[in-house]
Amino acid sequence: MSGDLPPAPDVVRSSYAELVVTDLARARWFWVEVLGLHAESDRDGVLCLRGTDELTHHNVVLREGPAAALSHLAYRVRTPADVDRAEAHFAALGCPTRRIPAGSGTPGVGDAVRVIDPLGFPVEFYYAIERGERLIQRYDLHRGAAIARLDHFNIVVPDIDAAYGHYRGLGFGCSETIEDEHEMYAAWMYRKQTVHDVAFTGGAGPRLHHLGLATHESHQVLHIADILGSLHAENHIERGPGRHGVSNAFYVYLRDPDGHRIEVYTSDYYTGDPDHETFRWDVNDDRRRDYWGNAVIESWYKEATPVLDLDGRIAPIEESRIDESAIRVGADGLGSPREVR
Amino acid sequence: MSGDLPPAPDVVRSSYAELVVTDLARARWFWVEVLGLHAESDRDGVLCLRGTDELTHHNVVLREGPAAALSHLAYRVRTPADVDRAEAHFAALGCPTRRIPAGSGTPGVGDAVRVIDPLGFPVEFYYAIERGERLIQRYDLHRGAAIARLDHFNIVVPDIDAAYGHYRGLGFGCSETIEDEHEMYAAWMYRKQTVHDVAFTGGAGPRLHHLGLATHESHQVLHIADILGSLHAENHIERGPGRHGVSNAFYVYLRDPDGHRIEVYTSDYYTGDPDHETFRWDVNDDRRRDYWGNAVIESWYKEATPVLDLDGRIAPIEESRIDESAIRVGADGLGSPREVR
Amino acid sequence: MSGDLPPAPDVVRSSYAELVVTDLARARWFWVEVLGLHAESDRDGVLCLRGTDELTHHNVVLREGPAAALSHLAYRVRTPADVDRAEAHFAALGCPTRRIPAGSGTPGVGDAVRVIDPLGFPVEFYYAIERGERLIQRYDLHRGAAIARLDHFNIVVPDIDAAYGHYRGLGFGCSETIEDEHEMYAAWMYRKQTVHDVAFTGGAGPRLHHLGLATHESHQVLHIADILGSLHAENHIERGPGRHGVSNAFYVYLRDPDGHRIEVYTSDYYTGDPDHETFRWDVNDDRRRDYWGNAVIESWYKEATPVLDLDGRIAPIEESRIDESAIRVGADGLGSPREVR
Amino acid sequence: MSGDLPPAPDVVRSSYAELVVTDLARARWFWVEVLGLHAESDRDGVLCLRGTDELTHHNVVLREGPAAALSHLAYRVRTPADVDRAEAHFAALGCPTRRIPAGSGTPGVGDAVRVIDPLGFPVEFYYAIERGERLIQRYDLHRGAAIARLDHFNIVVPDIDAAYGHYRGLGFGCSETIEDEHEMYAAWMYRKQTVHDVAFTGGAGPRLHHLGLATHESHQVLHIADILGSLHAENHIERGPGRHGVSNAFYVYLRDPDGHRIEVYTSDYYTGDPDHETFRWDVNDDRRRDYWGNAVIESWYKEATPVLDLDGRIAPIEESRIDESAIRVGADGLGSPREVR
Repeated sequence: MSGDLPPAPDVVRSSYAELVVTDLARARWFWVEVLGLHAESDRDGVLCLRGTDELTHHNVVLREGPAAALSHLAYRVRTPADVDRAEAHFAALGCPTRRIPAGSGTPGVGDAVRVIDPLGFPVEFYYAIERGERLIQRYDLHRGAAIARLDHFNIVVPDIDAAYGHYRGLGFGCSETIEDEHEMYAAWMYRKQTVHDVAFTGGAGPRLHHLGLATHESHQVLHIADILGSLHAENHIERGPGRHGVSNAFYVYLRDPDGHRIEVYTSDYYTGDPDHETFRWDVNDDRRRDYWGNAVIESWYKEATPVLDLDGRIAPIEESRIDESAIRVGADGLGSPREVR
Repeated sequence: MSGDLPPAPDVVRSSYAELVVTDLARARWFWVEVLGLHAESDRDGVLCLRGTDELTHHNVVLREGPAAALSHLAYRVRTPADVDRAEAHFAALGCPTRRIPAGSGTPGVGDAVRVIDPLGFPVEFYYAIERGERLIQRYDLHRGAAIARLDHFNIVVPDIDAAYGHYRGLGFGCSETIEDEHEMYAAWMYRKQTVHDVAFTGGAGPRLHHLGLATHESHQVLHIADILGSLHAENHIERGPGRHGVSNAFYVYLRDPDGHRIEVYTSDYYTGDPDHETFRWDVNDDRRRDYWGNAVIESWYKEATPVLDLDGRIAPIEESRIDESAIRVGADGLGSPREVR
Repeated sequence: MSGDLPPAPDVVRSSYAELVVTDLARARWFWVEVLGLHAESDRDGVLCLRGTDELTHHNVVLREGPAAALSHLAYRVRTPADVDRAEAHFAALGCPTRRIPAGSGTPGVGDAVRVIDPLGFPVEFYYAIERGERLIQRYDLHRGAAIARLDHFNIVVPDIDAAYGHYRGLGFGCSETIEDEHEMYAAWMYRKQTVHDVAFTGGAGPRLHHLGLATHESHQVLHIADILGSLHAENHIERGPGRHGVSNAFYVYLRDPDGHRIEVYTSDYYTGDPDHETFRWDVNDDRRRDYWGNAVIESWYKEATPVLDLDGRIAPIEESRIDESAIRVGADGLGSPREVR
Repeated sequence: MSGDLPPAPDVVRSSYAELVVTDLARARWFWVEVLGLHAESDRDGVLCLRGTDELTHHNVVLREGPAAALSHLAYRVRTPADVDRAEAHFAALGCPTRRIPAGSGTPGVGDAVRVIDPLGFPVEFYYAIERGERLIQRYDLHRGAAIARLDHFNIVVPDIDAAYGHYRGLGFGCSETIEDEHEMYAAWMYRKQTVHDVAFTGGAGPRLHHLGLATHESHQVLHIADILGSLHAENHIERGPGRHGVSNAFYVYLRDPDGHRIEVYTSDYYTGDPDHETFRWDVNDDRRRDYWGNAVIESWYKEATPVLDLDGRIAPIEESRIDESAIRVGADGLGSPREVR
């Protein structure tokens, strides 16, 4: 059937996300003063942020609104024509679509189309975006976690197979999975030459699990945790710092004042070779979620951000059939003493 | 009454510990091949180890025996006469003492005295020790955690006040404590100009909680955790990596094949000024044990290494009156979702 | 005229280089024991090496021979058909070409074509290569500089414009240049989404300036310099560690026992967006070659590795018209005291 | 003869230095905004600064004046009585001395004595000093190089043997030297348990060579160099970053707007054992000044800060008999190509 579909757009990468926050002043404190993102523009209740390696206008947008939510995920496409292709492709899939002319949507973004994808997520495709001043070597501006760029979206979906199939249809490769002989529990998929642009966590959805923000070195991940301790704001640290088994990233998970989850991480690997193979983790390997075998806190599996539909209403959430967090072996048995072999 | 005591010896620092291990081959795998300590001598069932900054013969000694235990802690004293002072001082305290002539005790150590101190611990005092070849700049020998030196002993005692008083009598300063208005839960005490040479954790004792081994930078702490993941030996990681509130050290706690606990850590601070003040943590501050508010695994509070008496028998253990691990606020409530303020 | 050419092959990335070394035992000491590359195969006088993030058979090959030289650079192409395209494309350019059937060339490589490109360099194009065991998370194997992967080739060419034009014709983007109003002194060009796969240094050529090997963090760059100091082999350190202005990489330049130059570096930036712009450095900006303004040692500009032709003979070398090293402002004035503003 | 001298004061450590700067606004920009020291007080043309690990009022003081100079070095002593001992000791040595009552000298410092020591340097001894708020875990305040504390003074003296003898008389130990069979070229001496509180560089003196400021990790040393590049203020970087052979410190040398030299460094080693031996470097070992064999820039050997006498006049400078910088072997031959063995 997909043979009859109009061609999918040529996606370059995950490029920004727009979040609704309930108190922009508190959000600004967290994202700018503490986390240290660069504020590219800040007016009319919309704050556009970016890391120092990012050359476009923003990679995180915060918009003040009545309830914490994901407004939309955004993928940059290769050419202006790919915006049209995205519209036709998703329309043919039976998805709601809406054109967003330049100047009427997110600041700095040119002509775009927004869709509710088959997984229920609001997703924007665009080609044109304003450039930002080059900050790549502005070490004097480093604050907080010294964020370099947005790396990926992690989304919560009830049906991992459906999510995998949808993104394969968009031309994404698959770098890693968590599986057993019956189920796929999670998958990491990419267009750019890193481990992922998008990953799926099994659970009630559609919800946004986290935004992955890349920094250059592990000491920068430690530093943001230390800063939060200094501010007695350690409750914003949810999990880590730690090393992922999947992706090999060194990570810390933070929660912003609205509970939006951010992964600050460093160090994954190149995936650009044409025959790059999927690496499959056994769900029973303690190291899949933390390479050091440390337990994953329950909230990390269970809590996430709801998403909006194209009219700005919170989308309904469907329960999940599978629950990776129930598979607790070794360290994942929270609080149980670790046996030394 | 202490005015009538013979003077205490002038202790320079915590300088080595001798542990009994049940399988020297497995211990050698862990301490030398994985952790990367330098083997200075290895014969007759006794393995003498040191870090690259250590200029004396050893700072950890492993002796094969029937049951995992602490053989003795050792403090270096300032002069040969201080060995005699130690003997007289502890004898006057009513403690068992035993002279260990050079060549009859731990390899490389000169004339020494061993005592069972008032807290029930086997402790050696010595001045003379063989030198080791200078390895301070032998970066080519760095393996595992790139251990530089022994930093401290952490001991489990049922009566924190008694431990504090005893070490004050030996001339130790106190850098930090954990307290509330009624109790002292833990204390960190020093002779050399770091945060501690010895610290006390409240619990059933006398038992050895851990040996603290110093490395130079935080990436070296992360590296030993990563190596253990690589070897699928992540069960040897008990807690961390993390940042301590107390002492500000960046740490990871490992358990050796016999369950002996090792802290690999970096970064504390100078305490050598004459009016250095004790810093007092409130036991209700989540950050005291982990500055990022991460939970402390139960085994870390409860498990420890028994100690030997002067005749090599396991010493009896007395229960503790207080239990810091029962004070669980915020993150210390294991597995409870973290509230974001 | 290029409109009449058969299409260029779709190059994926710079993927390996084969060097001739005069003493394989000494080369093995340097590349494996000191630098810490993983030896994937070692037989018949050919040593195949790779970094831990590399999933193919090798990214550096050392072949014993009578004189130190570059045997060939190799680019991986996207499909088997691109090998044929490479042959036709270079033949149409009037370049010598030679098919290398699988099994007859470098170990592990499938069908390939080798050419002498218009710049005089021996270059191989191939699609198929044996896989290597996944070592991405084998932290226990980290030695020396903990090399992750090959990143780029830097070649010395007398005519920068010609080199730039040739690689534009192969579809390479240009991330950075060094220029003044009259001349381009150097350029950095890429196919994969990093700052470069190949860069050009102006000088007598064709010669190989260096191979760029990527590691994950700056402490790993420092560590290989420290190791060389420990071994009293500091003469193998030619320049750095330092921070490049161009590319923002943190680097050290080493010379192997035959004088082949290696850059161990970390930290560049993503270049995959479709409108990625070239960043142009003024040749008079002291920071272009070292962001800290440190002088560049003369040998770094002047010395390089000769290249072989398809029959294994040293290729003749043409003098350069321009000399960037003659432009010495500020710190580049070797030994002149730095003025403090 | 020294047997007849009144006893020397018990020096605890090098604790602060007061510098005269010609433009306090520009100095504030450099030391506070760029280097990131904490401004404890700033009034009446005197700026008191400290690192985050320092618990006393300051460890660097900048006082505006007509010409760049060292006002005085300051050592903290163990008891108030040691201030009197210092006065008597130096008076007996025939040195000018002057009592500085609390409140009349440097802000925050209690009763003190200042002397012109036998080497011609203005030196203060004091016991009492105001405490500063504890900033040890204020990671949110880290800026620039994240300076933790003052570590040492490095002074230029024409007669190394005289300097060595003087500080031996004050009870300092000697950790390292640079020597050949005829001469001592440099020495590192300590009271606290680090490599040094004071070091001597041979040259025209008395002059201050540099203040050594300690940071915790090597990435913080790199970061201040990167920041200076970002600000196009790379001319403030004089030498490094690099690894010292002597002391094993990882360093960078900066020059402030008046040319005062600062070493930002990390990582030396414990020297507190009673039989700590002096480590002697051969002046012909290239690694003594830079463990990687990199050349030392001429200005580093030749330029330094003049000192004031007790009346605030610039002290006369005596030429040196020896010149370590003339001994250039290997890398020290600036610009000469490095031979690869």
